[in-house]
Amino acid sequence: MESRTVSESRVIKTGLVLPPDTNQHGTIFGGKVMALIDEVGAISAMRHAQKLVVTASIDSVHFINPAKLGDILTLESFVTWTGKTSMEVFVRVTSENPKTQVKKLTTTSFLTFVAIDENGKPSSVPQIIPETEEEKWLFETAVARRERRHQSKKEFESFLEL
Amino acid sequence: MESRTVSESRVIKTGLVLPPDTNQHGTIFGGKVMALIDEVGAISAMRHAQKLVVTASIDSVHFINPAKLGDILTLESFVTWTGKTSMEVFVRVTSENPKTQVKKLTTTSFLTFVAIDENGKPSSVPQIIPETEEEKWLFETAVARRERRHQSKKEFESFLEL
Amino acid sequence: MESRTVSESRVIKTGLVLPPDTNQHGTIFGGKVMALIDEVGAISAMRHAQKLVVTASIDSVHFINPAKLGDILTLESFVTWTGKTSMEVFVRVTSENPKTQVKKLTTTSFLTFVAIDENGKPSSVPQIIPETEEEKWLFETAVARRERRHQSKKEFESFLEL
Amino acid sequence: MESRTVSESRVIKTGLVLPPDTNQHGTIFGGKVMALIDEVGAISAMRHAQKLVVTASIDSVHFINPAKLGDILTLESFVTWTGKTSMEVFVRVTSENPKTQVKKLTTTSFLTFVAIDENGKPSSVPQIIPETEEEKWLFETAVARRERRHQSKKEFESFLEL
Amino acid sequence: MESRTVSESRVIKTGLVLPPDTNQHGTIFGGKVMALIDEVGAISAMRHAQKLVVTASIDSVHFINPAKLGDILTLESFVTWTGKTSMEVFVRVTSENPKTQVKKLTTTSFLTFVAIDENGKPSSVPQIIPETEEEKWLFETAVARRERRHQSKKEFESFLEL
Amino acid sequence: MESRTVSESRVIKTGLVLPPDTNQHGTIFGGKVMALIDEVGAISAMRHAQKLVVTASIDSVHFINPAKLGDILTLESFVTWTGKTSMEVFVRVTSENPKTQVKKLTTTSFLTFVAIDENGKPSSVPQIIPETEEEKWLFETAVARRERRHQSKKEFESFLEL
Repeated sequence: MESRTVSESRVIKTGLVLPPDTNQHGTIFGGKVMALIDEVGAISAMRHAQKLVVTASIDSVHFINPAKLGDILTLESFVTWTGKTSMEVFVRVTSENPKTQVKKLTTTSFLTFVAIDENGKPSSVPQIIPETEEEKWLFETAVARRERRHQSKKEFESFLEL
Repeated sequence: MESRTVSESRVIKTGLVLPPDTNQHGTIFGGKVMALIDEVGAISAMRHAQKLVVTASIDSVHFINPAKLGDILTLESFVTWTGKTSMEVFVRVTSENPKTQVKKLTTTSFLTFVAIDENGKPSSVPQIIPETEEEKWLFETAVARRERRHQSKKEFESFLEL
Repeated sequence: MESRTVSESRVIKTGLVLPPDTNQHGTIFGGKVMALIDEVGAISAMRHAQKLVVTASIDSVHFINPAKLGDILTLESFVTWTGKTSMEVFVRVTSENPKTQVKKLTTTSFLTFVAIDENGKPSSVPQIIPETEEEKWLFETAVARRERRHQSKKEFESFLEL
Repeated sequence: MESRTVSESRVIKTGLVLPPDTNQHGTIFGGKVMALIDEVGAISAMRHAQKLVVTASIDSVHFINPAKLGDILTLESFVTWTGKTSMEVFVRVTSENPKTQVKKLTTTSFLTFVAIDENGKPSSVPQIIPETEEEKWLFETAVARRERRHQSKKEFESFLEL
Repeated sequence: MESRTVSESRVIKTGLVLPPDTNQHGTIFGGKVMALIDEVGAISAMRHAQKLVVTASIDSVHFINPAKLGDILTLESFVTWTGKTSMEVFVRVTSENPKTQVKKLTTTSFLTFVAIDENGKPSSVPQIIPETEEEKWLFETAVARRERRHQSKKEFESFLEL
Repeated sequence: MESRTVSESRVIKTGLVLPPDTNQHGTIFGGKVMALIDEVGAISAMRHAQKLVVTASIDSVHFINPAKLGDILTLESFVTWTGKTSMEVFVRVTSENPKTQVKKLTTTSFLTFVAIDENGKPSSVPQIIPETEEEKWLFETAVARRERRHQSKKEFESFLEL
């Protein structure tokens, strides 16, 4: 299985914030943003793995600026790190007022996906090759995020009986 | 502003996992679960605050067991902790096979919401009163989660220029 | 096949009334409410029968108070009566203004569902055990509703050639 | 306000039964049919009243033949009777297999709508003029249906405190 | 395979323009209209062919009057011409203000569909029989439209490498 | 009003083909593709004009290869030509099998949009500056497409009384 570059997994999704996506203040629902983040993240992971994938985890997200009704919402994602069957994907979400063209960061997020075979079992993925400075930095810092994710999962499991 | 009990903010949402919610393996999209988590969490926060709310953050989530097409999906949520204008909400998601009635935990999540006034500005919320053992434990452990969230946000901000 | 209590079939579904659900006056479409009633009713019936179900009939509904855009809509349902393969389910719908927290009854409805096997054929269901006063009263009055439903169906059939 | 004929209120809606409309057996959800019935009924009522309308009640419906995934679903509706501010509308739903072109009746339904003015208050509607034999028969039998509806509403109100 | 008249393929679809269908000016999205045009066109083609169909092309459309939020939108379609496995369908879209009942033409469109068999391969269709003056005129002018479509497709193919 | 380059209007939208988008053969509906084409085209036009826009026309489209359930669908669009208040936009749609990563052209399309002001009236747009060979060629050939579009609109108007 040949290694693949980060750029081969890059995905862009641009769309309009429409009435069904927003609350009474005309700001997008956090959950709607999460659904889009999961969709582009999964496409990046599938492009890297050339296999179907399932979402294993989503790191904590902070909503910085709320996208508004009528805004142009842009999501960008790419694979930052790979394990044997799992991949970490970074997603950045920005909103843009179509009239003023002022762009604002909505949020960023790290997700992990697991590649699966025809029977839904975990399946190996190619190694990732970071090329740019940013990609290399994200690759190197992935170990620390993975560590924190494991701790968070352990703690999470302590809530399972709640 | 009078304090309110945790139980006053409890919300249950039961529904069916339908074709638009699932991938080709018939398992629910992680993003769809996140959208539902955000919806019930927001209702719990509004019930506590008696005001509109916006999502400020969603803590990391781990998908334990994937809900399947045709499963009954149940979300339960309640406010666990309150600040001046913000609230922490706990959400638990379980799936249930309608024939075997075997129930599985899909995931749990902590979210924070901020109450807003008519102008969309942060607005104060009542204090929460934990009553049961579980509620008290979640209330007491909230400070540590808040600490970690602040650290995560700081680190998150280091990604803003990416 | 063991009998089951009414409470085992209880379902709650809480959600927000969103823009796609409402007309130009900001009030929820009657048809949207009916779709939700059918969904929770089917879940109650499946929980009782431990089988898939199809909707056989929906008794007449009267819309008392219209739910509004932004309201919290709550549906509650449970099985009230069982035949050999059919079940009667009661559904109550209330709306709640998130700011004032005033609750209003939207409507109530009785539906009948038939349990089906793998081939889509009617399949037997457990007997229901009413426990509370309300459950017993609904169980006892079910015969009269069933009678009226049969008459209504006969009359309905006289419209078939229209 | 001039009287209007029944035919001026006739509405036809033809569409395809798609995956989001069906359960795991590939049969349409009863609630989805109800939503469509309410939509065409409201259009018939608006065409007659030349005003916005709200759904007041839906008479009991019996699902005769389940429409299937891929079927062509046709709804036809028209106003059958008018009061001062209310209208009774009849809706007939048929499904058609696109390959065999066999048509089956799915259900029929009577609904009542109330015309409303700019303030959402009940507002008077033109008188209906039945012309064909069928229209006249439906007009004449409307009084009995109205009677039964009133009794059903009274009984319904006895459930309000449940 | 017996010939069939144009009228056997006639389809009408009436519906309401709802919030999810419109932009911030309350006018329907062009793409939403196209989706409805494709749906009714496909039903006309299936009714004629008694087979499943796929869209081969959509002729250029001009949006004359924009339908508005709350308007009643009506689509009418019928087969105008048939080849060996392909059909040309004409669709007309009008909007109607429910209060003033003023009707306006939104657009018209010609589409071509190909009938397919169980394996998704092109499959022969009955000949069409135009009966009215309008139907005959559309049938006779179909050859010229087909010619133009072929030229447009050739030119289209010159864009394929873009 | 300063001129703007073509590249400033480039939009990419990547997504998954999901069950609600496909027919029983698992191929995407032509109308669904049209809706997406209109969405990305409108974003390109808004980015160029820095104003809201409405769709004026969509040139004929030919569906070359049908996208399938589970495919990754990518739309790319940019402004190719500008008039006083109108813009021509080019959209290319490709599908990609996530496992084999074979990419196929679904279709391409030219649309025209008109920029509108706060009152919904046509409003002037910046001139476009083509830079690459492809952009220049599309700019130069736009006059001929415009000519053909005018002829098509004239012919279209001859159908208005149908």
